[in-house]
Amino acid sequence: MLYIIGLGLCDEKDITVRGLEAVKSSARVYLEAYTSILMVQKERLEAFYGKKLIPADRDMVETESDEILRNADKEDVAFLVVGDPFGATTHIDIVLRARADKIPVRIIHNASIMNAVGACGLQLYNFGQSVSLVFFTETWKPDSFYDRINENSGLGLHTLVLLDIKVKEQSEENLARGRKIYEPPRYMSVPQAVSQLLEIESLRNEKVLSPSTTLGIALSRVGGDDNSQRIVCGTLEELSQQPTEVFGEPLHSLVIVGNRLHHLEVNFAQEYAVNKETWRQVASKAYGCALE
Amino acid sequence: MLYIIGLGLCDEKDITVRGLEAVKSSARVYLEAYTSILMVQKERLEAFYGKKLIPADRDMVETESDEILRNADKEDVAFLVVGDPFGATTHIDIVLRARADKIPVRIIHNASIMNAVGACGLQLYNFGQSVSLVFFTETWKPDSFYDRINENSGLGLHTLVLLDIKVKEQSEENLARGRKIYEPPRYMSVPQAVSQLLEIESLRNEKVLSPSTTLGIALSRVGGDDNSQRIVCGTLEELSQQPTEVFGEPLHSLVIVGNRLHHLEVNFAQEYAVNKETWRQVASKAYGCALE
Repeated sequence: MLYIIGLGLCDEKDITVRGLEAVKSSARVYLEAYTSILMVQKERLEAFYGKKLIPADRDMVETESDEILRNADKEDVAFLVVGDPFGATTHIDIVLRARADKIPVRIIHNASIMNAVGACGLQLYNFGQSVSLVFFTETWKPDSFYDRINENSGLGLHTLVLLDIKVKEQSEENLARGRKIYEPPRYMSVPQAVSQLLEIESLRNEKVLSPSTTLGIALSRVGGDDNSQRIVCGTLEELSQQPTEVFGEPLHSLVIVGNRLHHLEVNFAQEYAVNKETWRQVASKAYGCALE
Repeated sequence: MLYIIGLGLCDEKDITVRGLEAVKSSARVYLEAYTSILMVQKERLEAFYGKKLIPADRDMVETESDEILRNADKEDVAFLVVGDPFGATTHIDIVLRARADKIPVRIIHNASIMNAVGACGLQLYNFGQSVSLVFFTETWKPDSFYDRINENSGLGLHTLVLLDIKVKEQSEENLARGRKIYEPPRYMSVPQAVSQLLEIESLRNEKVLSPSTTLGIALSRVGGDDNSQRIVCGTLEELSQQPTEVFGEPLHSLVIVGNRLHHLEVNFAQEYAVNKETWRQVASKAYGCALE
């Protein structure tokens, strides 16, 4: 059996009991390490599972899937994924390959940011499509997210913005010389994300986002304890002015709030507001939310 | 500490290791029993946890929250929720009450249908807002879901339709006589859901849904093993013509497929098609998906 197991959001204890049993029964355990990052070290997972983990980067999953699937028709093989196996990035491909080899597959689900974003208090059914925001360069500033946010906002819906991470990137020089030397991982911060959003707003100027009247909710390490999870909300301007530390450790996500906003949700998130007064004022005046 | 713990989707082993530890450390453990249903008996959970569970119905959570929160500033109290604590229905209210009493709260996330729907192979970021479909009566046929699906479809997005359940409902007679006798639980089946969708289509006639050219994917018991999880897809007409048993045990959900459809997704779901040929044909012709 090929088990594809979601690890959840924070640390080694977020695996489900079923997932842990499958890891323990598996002959080989792969750790997917490119669509997201773990918040704990691999060694800590290994100690908890009592198993060696084989890191599987994108290359390996794409080119060596035969090795991953080897003998999985006779013994258990586990493939671990941060969040849920069908989270922001799906693992359709490896399932299709397993099917072609007549290897049974079982998915063990877990929380991912796609549902745990509910921790900010906004009703999940009022979220529209999600978008990803990549690091801009001087010459490459993809802005399709702007149209997606516009579509969502037009319907009053919230948008979950997933912020870019760069893991196992090579510098241009190392890439050119074929040296497999990797840069340290980079995570987009909330102020940087907001600045990119507003840069596109000022280029496109379609009034989708406004520094002072668009509300955002930043989340990091959702599901972690109080020392680790951070939820911070305010106008985009307020968020962009906070020091990076305010937002806690990566990974970060950002919700652009749509105007299907209930007063209970405003009250709930107020606890996390940079400035409670602006938060309520914008919710009431710009969003038309009837506060008590 | 008040722990609000997601139980995940299927059975007692879908709780996370962290969640299980919190249950074991808690002086009292409540089981929320009105926004969703468990697929296992309460007794099986109790045996697994080694703890008595106190069922908490909607009445109790709304009127006796003081009792639930009693002493939670000094000892651990656990409140168990099927799926994720902030799933289709949120538990904002009890968190706000705990905060007012200065009781620390920790949310332990888990999979819910809102992210596990990815099991059907469609990319989660192409889902729009979710909708709920309630049992129609002769005189009450709320149809706002139709506008929501229309909004999503207009953007090419998929819609997750959550099908109604009726738990702890009283008959009109028992209600009138004040007898706390409850009807057996009822779950909306996929054919019934499709028939309600098409009934509203024929009333509103805005060409949002078509029996022969709208594709749907039905899911039940997502995350269960092969004997329990069912994914069935086809045109709405095909789905409505299947015997109820085809869709497996409740709970059921239904995805209305939007036209942001990738050929890999079509291939993936084809495995579950009522008729592979119609599935591919409609994906190609009506949805304009370039199949290989």
